[in-house]
Amino acid sequence: MNKQDIQDVVYQVIERMQDSNQSSSEVPIGISARHCHLNKECLEELFGKGYELTSKAPLSQPGQFAANETVMIAGPRGSIEKVRILGPLRSVSQVEVSQTDAFQLGLKPPVRQSGHIEGSSPITIIGPKGSVYLDKGLIIAQAHIHMHPDDASYFNVKDKEVVAVGIDNGERKVTFEKTLIRVSEKYRLEMHIDTDEANSGAIKSGQYGHLKKVESTDV
Amino acid sequence: MNKQDIQDVVYQVIERMQDSNQSSSEVPIGISARHCHLNKECLEELFGKGYELTSKAPLSQPGQFAANETVMIAGPRGSIEKVRILGPLRSVSQVEVSQTDAFQLGLKPPVRQSGHIEGSSPITIIGPKGSVYLDKGLIIAQAHIHMHPDDASYFNVKDKEVVAVGIDNGERKVTFEKTLIRVSEKYRLEMHIDTDEANSGAIKSGQYGHLKKVESTDV
Repeated sequence: MNKQDIQDVVYQVIERMQDSNQSSSEVPIGISARHCHLNKECLEELFGKGYELTSKAPLSQPGQFAANETVMIAGPRGSIEKVRILGPLRSVSQVEVSQTDAFQLGLKPPVRQSGHIEGSSPITIIGPKGSVYLDKGLIIAQAHIHMHPDDASYFNVKDKEVVAVGIDNGERKVTFEKTLIRVSEKYRLEMHIDTDEANSGAIKSGQYGHLKKVESTDV
Repeated sequence: MNKQDIQDVVYQVIERMQDSNQSSSEVPIGISARHCHLNKECLEELFGKGYELTSKAPLSQPGQFAANETVMIAGPRGSIEKVRILGPLRSVSQVEVSQTDAFQLGLKPPVRQSGHIEGSSPITIIGPKGSVYLDKGLIIAQAHIHMHPDDASYFNVKDKEVVAVGIDNGERKVTFEKTLIRVSEKYRLEMHIDTDEANSGAIKSGQYGHLKKVESTDV
C-alpha cells in the first residue's frame, strides 16, 4: 500500500465513523414529482361516471398508491402532460407542482402544506372524458417529514414543528430550513421534497438527510 | 388600532431591526439561466468565419455581456433551444446548465466551478452556420460569490474558500452550504446560483443572502 492508498482508507473510515455518529438524526429522502389528488366528483368528470382508480405501485406511506391514471394540467402559458394521480381519493382535489412547472404553466402557486389550498392558484385538469377547472388547488408543496409518533418522540419533535434538514451528496450540500414535521399513526418516516429541491442539491431518492432542531419552531 | 394591528407593527419593527443587524453579511443574489461561453474557433464554426458577438445587455460583472446570439444545445435524449451566449469570447468553450436541463438533454454533467471542465460531459452545440461537438465542456455551475479583494477582506474570506449562504424569502428558506468564494480585482459582489437552486428557495434575482463562514473551508 502506498501513502495515497492509506490516506484513502483512513478517509473512508473517518467518513463511516461520522456517518454512524450522525445516524441518530438521519431521515430518508423521497422526491415527489408533480402529481394530483382528486375527489370522487373530479375523477368522474375526468374519467367518466363510476370510474375507479387502479394502482400502478404502492407509495412509501401505507395505503397510498401511484395510480395508472394520469391527466394533463394547464394554465395560461402552457400545459403539462402525464401528471400522475395519487390514490386513494380525497375529499378535496389538489395539484402539486414544482416552481419550474409553475413557470411552464404561467401560474404562481403558493408554497403550502398538503390540504391547505385556501387562496392557492386555479388550475385546469384535462382527462380522457372531460376537464375540470378548479378555482383553487394548485400548490408547491412545502418540504415535510412524515413520521410516526414513535419517530417524533425519538427525534424530540412534534406535529407542525419546523426543522432544518441538511443533505450532502458530496457535490452539493443544501439545508432546507423550513421543513414541516407531520406526525400520524399512519405515517412512515420519510422526508418529501420536490424536484426543484432535489435538483438544487443533486439529491436522489433514498439518500439521507440530517434533521436539526431550529429555534423558532411553530408555523 | 386593535391588538392584531399593534402586533403586526411590532413584528415589522423587529423584522427590520434584525435585517439591519444582519446587513454586514448580506450578498446580492443573481440567478444564472443556462448559457454558454465560446472560444473564437467555436463561434466561427457556429456563426461563420469572422463573425463577432453583439451585446444585448451588460451583465453585473464588469466587461461581461449577454449576447444577442443564441444556440441550440443537444444531448442523447433531447435538445434545448435559445441558449444565450455570454461574451466576451474565452479561450475554452463551456456550457452551463441546471440539473433539470441535464435530464432533458440526457446527460450527467458534474457540479463544477467555471473553467474546470476536465472530465465533464460532452455536448453538441448547433448554430445557424454549423454545429460543434465538444467532448467535454458541459457542467452544472457550483454556487459561487464573485467579490472584489476589498469585499473579501470585509467578509474575512479568501479566494476558493467555501462558505454557506442562507436565503429566506418567507415561504422557503434554504442554505447553500458549498458556496465558492471567487476573488478578483475585476469582480463586483454578487452570488450566482442556477435556476434549480433559485426555484428550490423560491428565490428572485436581487434578493439578498446571508454569508456564513463554515469550518472546513478549502476545496
